[in-house]
Amino acid sequence: MTTTPLSPTPRSTIGRSRERGRTDRADLYAVLDSGLVCHFGFVADAAPVVIPTGYGRIGSTIYVHGSSGARWLRPRVDGSDVAEMPACLTVTHLDGIVYARSVFHFSMNYRSAVVHGSARLVTDETERWDALRAIVEHLAPGSWEYAREPSRREMAATAVLAMDLTEASVKVRTGPPKDDAEDITDEVWAGVVPITPTFGSPLPDEHVPAGSAVPRHVAAR
Amino acid sequence: MTTTPLSPTPRSTIGRSRERGRTDRADLYAVLDSGLVCHFGFVADAAPVVIPTGYGRIGSTIYVHGSSGARWLRPRVDGSDVAEMPACLTVTHLDGIVYARSVFHFSMNYRSAVVHGSARLVTDETERWDALRAIVEHLAPGSWEYAREPSRREMAATAVLAMDLTEASVKVRTGPPKDDAEDITDEVWAGVVPITPTFGSPLPDEHVPAGSAVPRHVAAR
Repeated sequence: MTTTPLSPTPRSTIGRSRERGRTDRADLYAVLDSGLVCHFGFVADAAPVVIPTGYGRIGSTIYVHGSSGARWLRPRVDGSDVAEMPACLTVTHLDGIVYARSVFHFSMNYRSAVVHGSARLVTDETERWDALRAIVEHLAPGSWEYAREPSRREMAATAVLAMDLTEASVKVRTGPPKDDAEDITDEVWAGVVPITPTFGSPLPDEHVPAGSAVPRHVAAR
Repeated sequence: MTTTPLSPTPRSTIGRSRERGRTDRADLYAVLDSGLVCHFGFVADAAPVVIPTGYGRIGSTIYVHGSSGARWLRPRVDGSDVAEMPACLTVTHLDGIVYARSVFHFSMNYRSAVVHGSARLVTDETERWDALRAIVEHLAPGSWEYAREPSRREMAATAVLAMDLTEASVKVRTGPPKDDAEDITDEVWAGVVPITPTFGSPLPDEHVPAGSAVPRHVAAR
């Protein structure tokens, strides 16, 4: 585990509920590596746009990808194509609903990472290839070796953006409600309802012959 | 169910994978009403910021809330306090991982709603109260009646933002992978691993007397 502290900047410094802040790079990687969807934010015509998408991490760089025709994957500032644009990438895990004795103290247990910086259009073909592998392996470990690799045409149809993981904030809430002492009585229930994402049984498509075994890398989900 | 079409604007019109688009207001409400966390985007110092938070809906208005001291709940444009600011609110459900026969066709099954517009600071005390009730009831149905209502001091410590649900796009992907015909062989498995959020058993906090029943509105989760 890397134990470099995250660089504090005004926007990555947690303002509220500071006790929920985590400042180690290993905490950031733990939140990112255990998620599947990120919410990628950018600015278009002075307004924010927030897009859900998959992602992958290689070291201290995080990658997103999509169709090379997608508007959100083309860095633009003030209407012109540019090499990079301001961006924000957020990953959130919802771990539970916190039921308190006053509605004011209702909350959620969660782990979240907010990455600030620039999204850079990746143009180096080796980095593009490695990024796509990281994205597929993050979503579906073992699949890059198992499935057919991208063709030249497929690579040309794919755009990749990269963000450096230099400026980020991590917040974690765990545990029971924090009720005011005067609200605590025997009559009112308070506590946590945990939430976990659950993987179901793999569903083969219509072309998989009946009785085929599910590959180990899929069954391991 | 309301069956008004969503107003199409350039930014709410789906560019890629148009067959995944949904254009009815009822589809938008279905995605919003079955989520728990949204990702709220705004612009600060010309850069996007994406924050995870709870929300609630009343008719065609969606609300988010937090501490009145939180920076992201204070609408600002060019460094000045304003009544409303450009915002984007996105809710995403991840329903499955789509394993294809080529890495190019790997995908996710999902339902997402992207709401564009302005976030307005709610100042009317009745609207603020109703919004907080909607947010708590969305997170934890039945709790507003069960738990203590907010005090005057707690109301003062809480800020609420509202967005109109007039400009939004909804995307849904379901079903098996869409492989190229030439990749289909008996040897390669492809299909979907479903994902569902699962609620665990309610965990009472330390102040709940042993043997207390879990209230019906909590157990119903």
